[in-house]
Amino acid sequence: MSIRIGIYGYGNLGRGVELALTQNDDMQAVGVFTRRDPSTLKTLTGIPVYTADEVKKYANDIDVMILCGGSATDLPTQTPALAEHFNVVDSFDTHAKIPQHLLAVDTVSKKSGKTAIISAGWDPGMFSLARLYGETVLPVGETYTFWGKGVSQGHSDAIRRIEGVADAKQYTIPVQSAMQAVREGKNPTLSTAEKHERECFVVAKEGADKARIEREIKTMPNYFADYNTTVHFISQEELNEKHGGLPHGGVVIRSGETGGAHKHVVEYSLKLDSNAEFTASVLVACARAVYRLNGQGVTGCKTILDIPPVYLSGKNREELIEKLL
Amino acid sequence: MSIRIGIYGYGNLGRGVELALTQNDDMQAVGVFTRRDPSTLKTLTGIPVYTADEVKKYANDIDVMILCGGSATDLPTQTPALAEHFNVVDSFDTHAKIPQHLLAVDTVSKKSGKTAIISAGWDPGMFSLARLYGETVLPVGETYTFWGKGVSQGHSDAIRRIEGVADAKQYTIPVQSAMQAVREGKNPTLSTAEKHERECFVVAKEGADKARIEREIKTMPNYFADYNTTVHFISQEELNEKHGGLPHGGVVIRSGETGGAHKHVVEYSLKLDSNAEFTASVLVACARAVYRLNGQGVTGCKTILDIPPVYLSGKNREELIEKLL
Repeated sequence: MSIRIGIYGYGNLGRGVELALTQNDDMQAVGVFTRRDPSTLKTLTGIPVYTADEVKKYANDIDVMILCGGSATDLPTQTPALAEHFNVVDSFDTHAKIPQHLLAVDTVSKKSGKTAIISAGWDPGMFSLARLYGETVLPVGETYTFWGKGVSQGHSDAIRRIEGVADAKQYTIPVQSAMQAVREGKNPTLSTAEKHERECFVVAKEGADKARIEREIKTMPNYFADYNTTVHFISQEELNEKHGGLPHGGVVIRSGETGGAHKHVVEYSLKLDSNAEFTASVLVACARAVYRLNGQGVTGCKTILDIPPVYLSGKNREELIEKLL
Repeated sequence: MSIRIGIYGYGNLGRGVELALTQNDDMQAVGVFTRRDPSTLKTLTGIPVYTADEVKKYANDIDVMILCGGSATDLPTQTPALAEHFNVVDSFDTHAKIPQHLLAVDTVSKKSGKTAIISAGWDPGMFSLARLYGETVLPVGETYTFWGKGVSQGHSDAIRRIEGVADAKQYTIPVQSAMQAVREGKNPTLSTAEKHERECFVVAKEGADKARIEREIKTMPNYFADYNTTVHFISQEELNEKHGGLPHGGVVIRSGETGGAHKHVVEYSLKLDSNAEFTASVLVACARAVYRLNGQGVTGCKTILDIPPVYLSGKNREELIEKLL
């Protein structure tokens, strides 16, 4: 019998989960839950749409609910609320607030006898695993995370809020010389701004002062002021055509030394054409693990760092050991 | 109280374990067990040397025994035998025989109430994890393992057995064009020989026929015949000076597509100055996990694919979640 999955929220991530489920034979999508009017939504694969208000009615029809809302306002309340009735998986990615989110979900799910994995995706998620394995096998060393090349939605939004800007896309790009120094085992001390540069493609409104827009971008505190920032003004057509996707990725590097003064470099990198679809794919693997753990009576809130790797796979342990070990 | 580790066997790997233990505060080396005369061995850090014959006497003094023998003849008998009395970790790396080794160790350790991890290191080991995570988050795709650049001891030995060869070192090198095609998401079909080339540094004996030696190397079945092989004749001095180390490494690449026809490439690479010391460092992290699992009453034989990542780390879970997730 396949694992029955509910999708809570239907933006880019929810659609990604719907598609990821078609690639995993042991799982099936029960439906999408939305706060919008269900009749206004049409799903990619034709799965039904239900109103989020009635989600509790489906408690017996869903093995794991995958939450596809945002970290700023949706997940902090939705994940604990749904954990009262469902096993849940989310991609909560506000790093500083993970411990408090974990505690909130853990408290509810332990009481309800459910199992949760929070903060799944690629960072937090696969990059967190790379950081943990890296420092564990090389306890004396340094860990570096580089993001990009990829679109930062937060930075793109920040540019769009500037007066005179019609549209914008911002790419975060690792500084190649910094990455090279790390790869060579030089263990440099690097701030986030020294590791990344920012490239902005901006559509100015008719008659807007481009020099002022560029200045406002480059001097914006936190977002751009500390970074080497490049601004290109282009047409809306060019933006749509060349910068329509949401690619992302990055690299985690652990550089360390073992006891005999030998150097070692461990590198984990992702090159993703669709941030949302890859994140969705990780969420789906975590849903499988949640289902299995709950079946074994393990309850409460976990993270991907807690999960035995074999639990994430649709294949059985014997096959994995024989073919992949 | 720190975890008390025994080191069984004292070659390159055993010395690597001894050194790795000095980098992990929560563990201590109890001593080395050897089949040689203990009085002939001097350890790097001054830890005591005992005779392997009396290892059972130390059953109460050692929390985990790390086996540092070879996969061909040592580990198949030693790991099951020691699992009768100790929690054990080994680096058994004959891929085709892992299932039967696992079964042998599992049977003994379940009966004795002990816990084991076999086949830890980098391949099998960290590369196995990369293959598992890769195919789990991208179920539709291909996985590629490239080894090198690094010294293959088996191939170096094979050259040294040729008449007229005084000494030799063989490097396995990934074929850059093949790796590039994989990185670009082209999912080519590649044999091991199409993924690797072989570079040999050979010291010929006085008066030996170099042309014949080169021919014998290049036509040697299994080892070289199928590969693009380069042979350089050099002096013993140059071999010692420039090719004295045992570096190794490689890359695991998973290239796949998600439902919306988006491509993704996941890459895990290792660049190791000392194959033995890095392997030893992984064994030590696994010893920690074995100790914890046994303390929780989990017995039998595991692999690194079964281990919750947090169990490998010397830091506590809360700290790992806060700092690395």
